[in-house]
Amino acid sequence: MDFTEETATDAVVASFTGTADPRLREILGSLARHLHGFVREVEPTFEEWERAVGFLTATGQRCDDQRQEFILLSDVLGVTMLVDAINHRKATEATESTVLGPFHMVASPPRELGDTIDLVGTGQPCVVTGRVVSLDGAPLPGAQVDVWQADDHGFYDVQQPGGQPPGNGRGLFTCDDEGRFWFRTVTPSAYPIPTDGPVGGLLTATGRHPYRPAHIHFIVAADGHQPVTTHVFVAGSQYLDSDAVFAVKQSLIRDFDEVDDPDQAAAYGVQAPFRHARFEVVLQPSP
Amino acid sequence: MDFTEETATDAVVASFTGTADPRLREILGSLARHLHGFVREVEPTFEEWERAVGFLTATGQRCDDQRQEFILLSDVLGVTMLVDAINHRKATEATESTVLGPFHMVASPPRELGDTIDLVGTGQPCVVTGRVVSLDGAPLPGAQVDVWQADDHGFYDVQQPGGQPPGNGRGLFTCDDEGRFWFRTVTPSAYPIPTDGPVGGLLTATGRHPYRPAHIHFIVAADGHQPVTTHVFVAGSQYLDSDAVFAVKQSLIRDFDEVDDPDQAAAYGVQAPFRHARFEVVLQPSP
Repeated sequence: MDFTEETATDAVVASFTGTADPRLREILGSLARHLHGFVREVEPTFEEWERAVGFLTATGQRCDDQRQEFILLSDVLGVTMLVDAINHRKATEATESTVLGPFHMVASPPRELGDTIDLVGTGQPCVVTGRVVSLDGAPLPGAQVDVWQADDHGFYDVQQPGGQPPGNGRGLFTCDDEGRFWFRTVTPSAYPIPTDGPVGGLLTATGRHPYRPAHIHFIVAADGHQPVTTHVFVAGSQYLDSDAVFAVKQSLIRDFDEVDDPDQAAAYGVQAPFRHARFEVVLQPSP
Repeated sequence: MDFTEETATDAVVASFTGTADPRLREILGSLARHLHGFVREVEPTFEEWERAVGFLTATGQRCDDQRQEFILLSDVLGVTMLVDAINHRKATEATESTVLGPFHMVASPPRELGDTIDLVGTGQPCVVTGRVVSLDGAPLPGAQVDVWQADDHGFYDVQQPGGQPPGNGRGLFTCDDEGRFWFRTVTPSAYPIPTDGPVGGLLTATGRHPYRPAHIHFIVAADGHQPVTTHVFVAGSQYLDSDAVFAVKQSLIRDFDEVDDPDQAAAYGVQAPFRHARFEVVLQPSP
């Protein structure tokens, strides 16, 4: 029987019936049906199909040790956040998750509470203080708080090898006996996702800006609890309502108060004026 | 408003409303809906999403001047043939089309009618004779017949640089005053699509064999007519009912008769026994 518009999808789904792994069989069958559904709906010309092949090829070839353009594509198509939402359904008050992003590619250096992760010192100082607690409010001593962020010009250290000290903007902190953490940094800035690859071309073609609102990344983990991958967003930052990767959640926005008190500044080891953000992280117990 | 499972797809579709090109806007809106539909159906874990990102990345990185792994992926998912079917809807008796395939990457050398495209001479000789006509049966003098095929070991010249003479298995012929063409070659063999990349891994994981039935590729063009990209398949070849790229059409299968007549062999300039295939190509007038 010929492979025609009528028989095509069933034929491809049937070709996967010998797949040993039932989950892979399910995924590929669904992929064939949805992918064919897309093709049937848009009825691409061969030139359009070739452009799609060329775009996907260029996206793969733009990836290297420091850059993951397919994650970026997944991000700007809202797929990453949709996968995140599906995997974090919950009806609790636990801290919400958001995208990991492509820049958690190197291990954060372990640092002492109160240390700075800003190895450059050219921007506005910022202090982040917080606590890690369980759903019932009990503090979680020894919780691990992994943070990373862009510098005050909007670049991560791995984007500027040689231009920033390695580990700039990164730190792995261990909470004290009361589950508290605090560290110094630079006030984060809004920044564009990388635009010099195929995904940047897609954003240009669709009239979308490439910016993300100012934020600090967190992965917080504690014994007996589910870790959370999330951000703290800076209240009032530009692009909070049009994040290029759809990652903003209202519950993750915090005031970064400006503090112009020399005594408080001295207590944290920074110069006044500085910004101060408070972030309590609530973890769900492991299932 | 937060990006949630409920709002995700609308938010991404809405992000494309500023796209200047209405066709691109349509395609991306459809892509977002079908891609999200796939994600919602299979509910991938993060590990599965990472494997998908890794697979797509490896597919892009496997591409080079001689290899197009994304076309191969499109082929084994039936997408290429579906695009072909959509673009060649017709209710006529014109010759049916099938996939271009990834090996038409170099121009076929112009050759004289009767020349051989087999520059090696180790396999069974084959003669292909035919005619190019219009829908009404009128011959099309001067029609261009571009042919390419694998050698008797199942490899195209571009797959074995240094191993085969460049242009082996390829020829561009010009039909005579009666629209006739004829050339010598080697009897084609079934062969596997390249299995040493991500697509080969996909076939292995799904228990699918990588073989294509024996065939010769054709692109036939004539003034005032729509060109056709197609194959001739060898009747009786293995895998006619399970082509790895879903490209077989019954109307394109021809007998490759074994001829053991020294006079006929001498007339075509081959050794007996040889195989003889006849292929009449019917082109539709340009719209």
